[in-house]
Amino acid sequence: MTASFIREITSLANETVKMVRSLHLRKDREASGLFLAEGLKIATEAMQLGYAPQVLMFGPDATAHPLLQQLARHTSEQGGEVIQVTRDILEKVSRRDNPQMVVAIFHQFYRELSSLQPDDATCWVALQAVRDPGNLGTIVRTADAAGCGGVILVGDCCDAFSVEAVRATMGSIFATPIYRATVSEFISWRAHWPGAVIGTLLSATEDFRTAPYRAPNLILMGNEQQGLPAELANLCDVNVKIPMRGRADSLNLSIATGVMIYAAT
Amino acid sequence: MTASFIREITSLANETVKMVRSLHLRKDREASGLFLAEGLKIATEAMQLGYAPQVLMFGPDATAHPLLQQLARHTSEQGGEVIQVTRDILEKVSRRDNPQMVVAIFHQFYRELSSLQPDDATCWVALQAVRDPGNLGTIVRTADAAGCGGVILVGDCCDAFSVEAVRATMGSIFATPIYRATVSEFISWRAHWPGAVIGTLLSATEDFRTAPYRAPNLILMGNEQQGLPAELANLCDVNVKIPMRGRADSLNLSIATGVMIYAAT
Repeated sequence: MTASFIREITSLANETVKMVRSLHLRKDREASGLFLAEGLKIATEAMQLGYAPQVLMFGPDATAHPLLQQLARHTSEQGGEVIQVTRDILEKVSRRDNPQMVVAIFHQFYRELSSLQPDDATCWVALQAVRDPGNLGTIVRTADAAGCGGVILVGDCCDAFSVEAVRATMGSIFATPIYRATVSEFISWRAHWPGAVIGTLLSATEDFRTAPYRAPNLILMGNEQQGLPAELANLCDVNVKIPMRGRADSLNLSIATGVMIYAAT
Repeated sequence: MTASFIREITSLANETVKMVRSLHLRKDREASGLFLAEGLKIATEAMQLGYAPQVLMFGPDATAHPLLQQLARHTSEQGGEVIQVTRDILEKVSRRDNPQMVVAIFHQFYRELSSLQPDDATCWVALQAVRDPGNLGTIVRTADAAGCGGVILVGDCCDAFSVEAVRATMGSIFATPIYRATVSEFISWRAHWPGAVIGTLLSATEDFRTAPYRAPNLILMGNEQQGLPAELANLCDVNVKIPMRGRADSLNLSIATGVMIYAAT
């Protein structure tokens, strides 16, 4: 592919390459408000959803692909940079031995709770202090697949725009609204929730299948290690448990959330 | 902790250390029939389930723990090696910057399909060509938590005893029987299954919630990318789908399996 707007970069010392690599660090993502998404298919879907890359990087193997040509033109038209790089640069940028041939940098899009419209969907998910980016990303993907309205991050959560979380969303990061709130913001906001608020708790006695779901349902899940703290468990309409019948005393958080989402939808 | 049966090793060139490190490679696990599990709690649970470590390694921070003393004595009594190592060796053995302070080596315990007793549980899980060790491990954990009888690996699957898969099971690898079969072995064995065989397929039309479950249920899940091949989809009593209502066109395999397991139990 040759086009006047394409720059070629072969040096790891290049400033744009350094900026893109820095997006693996949370502090640099927060300072720039940017994040990194990998894969031509995912970047193309993002474009279709109205997101234009700030930077589009591609390797030598991708140049012939018609989707890339379309994406590159779109990026340039929207004022983004289009850069052809070496495979070595892609490996460093992705921190992977087998990098995707396309890497795209976008603006982050966390939303405020005040903008959330409960009636837009029959189910929403809130996660308190989720720690594992793979869990968070997988939950965003599940929420998207099940038609949830969005995912609310409550308190001190890991970053939904980390490379690992974005990877686990498989593109759903662009389709699923992500909200952020402190615990106290969430508590006052919840007072006006028009449907059921269902908290999942290992110590609950009500089975998740018999809970009084009432749309819009808000599923509230606690941290991987500690579960929901009392101040959040207490503000739910009901606390439910997913039965544990074997030796394992808990489910992986993303599995528990998936089971809850499909029970509520 | 001091006891006559404890050896101290500080060199990465030691033969036992080299053997333990080699267990990150599938070919070396297959040659030795051993695997590596991390964590004092998990190794102790393994002991309670009747498994004795062939090698028990611990770091300087673990020596005061009463559970370790019990585990060390048990390991030695059962003929295993008990070794105190440096933190550096634990990092190398775990390939982690923050290693667990205890690493234990056990014999693998894959089982044959011919030994499976369908009536031992109301639900069983079969995975065809599962590729991701994190998915496999998480599914083993979910199967354990839900009280499934075991997990059957059909065809060319990743290794349930890889370090990453074992980590994701969170100890459930010791509590959940793991079976292995070729596709043709599975097909002939299935003919005698006394309950329902439910295959999950994106192209199916029956909703997973209305399927004719009949215990013992056998949930059959295909590969992450391709799903179930026709020869396996066709031998199910029914193919079901988990509804996709958003932009995402599939669920993560471990999420889909978790949703199915809780629908069938």
